[in-house]
Amino acid sequence: MAESKQTKQAPEILHQEVVAQSRLFKIEQLQLRFSNGEERLYERMRGTGRGAVMVVAMPDPEHFYLVREYCAGTHDYQLGFPKGLIDPGEDPLVAANRELKEEIGFGARRLIPLKSVALAPGYFNATMHIVLALDLFPEQLTGDEPEPLEQVSWPRHHLDELLQQVDFTEARSVAALFLADAYLARNPDVFELTA
Amino acid sequence: MAESKQTKQAPEILHQEVVAQSRLFKIEQLQLRFSNGEERLYERMRGTGRGAVMVVAMPDPEHFYLVREYCAGTHDYQLGFPKGLIDPGEDPLVAANRELKEEIGFGARRLIPLKSVALAPGYFNATMHIVLALDLFPEQLTGDEPEPLEQVSWPRHHLDELLQQVDFTEARSVAALFLADAYLARNPDVFELTA
Repeated sequence: MAESKQTKQAPEILHQEVVAQSRLFKIEQLQLRFSNGEERLYERMRGTGRGAVMVVAMPDPEHFYLVREYCAGTHDYQLGFPKGLIDPGEDPLVAANRELKEEIGFGARRLIPLKSVALAPGYFNATMHIVLALDLFPEQLTGDEPEPLEQVSWPRHHLDELLQQVDFTEARSVAALFLADAYLARNPDVFELTA
Repeated sequence: MAESKQTKQAPEILHQEVVAQSRLFKIEQLQLRFSNGEERLYERMRGTGRGAVMVVAMPDPEHFYLVREYCAGTHDYQLGFPKGLIDPGEDPLVAANRELKEEIGFGARRLIPLKSVALAPGYFNATMHIVLALDLFPEQLTGDEPEPLEQVSWPRHHLDELLQQVDFTEARSVAALFLADAYLARNPDVFELTA
């Protein structure tokens, strides 16, 4: 049963229309017919389709950078990895480096894609590329943040302590933390490869 | 710098209104004033506020259950852990057991909360409680799925292979996988505690 094979045909879309819309969001209603004949109404959000990046940046083998940023959804400040939307036409790794320069004030000479994750595929078609950034150098770009972000340098081996922080809850940051940790465990010489 | 302290006051909400609405979603616009005087318009989604659960259920120490389910956001079938919304007034652990019975056909005698994660706190106030379920017993409840879900029993130690599956991408399932793996590594005797 460990084999994972996608065998099923996606349901037929009988009807599709935008039922609500704002400056940022578009809500679409789908009338679906499943392969067993069952019909249902679903709703989903249409985003920009541009995708996003999240960056685990390490100034040295023992630390990575976090930012604390205002989040309107929860109306509080949350701790997480630097992230942002990809600009139209921009390569995801270029976007990762740009966001790093805007939010942390460093660029990276090495950018290693770890995994691309989905937000909540039941409702969104939003992909976020999680990237490990090494060989950092100082370079500040101006972003569109309303205020400077608080930066936190976190010890790599204090993973459990980070998971217990009440403001470190975003699932994509939790995934990025473990993905980076697993990559570093599998590649212990990754910091020796550079000048 | 490893200390994580929330010092900043959330921005002042100058104005707040619902700008778009559908059967499932409500989009709210916020006019905010940050502590530095900067003013911005933000949008966020208002959900049901009920929260959700995701369940890592293990029939034995070497396997856990996944389901493959149609996702309207991506219009394809995705592999992930069983999950669902908490019913009004329902306890999260009771909800976890109910979803397990509906989606997998098993109940659990032991439910261990691993972590509560946020979707994308910049836009949503949606909490998902990730729960480890042990000591399973057969019990089927009827859910509201339009078709039976495909069940997959995955070997616990084939974690990397799962992360490489093209349809295993949801950030919350990736987080749940690592959180369960870390819990089991820290608690190697967890399967010996029961009859």
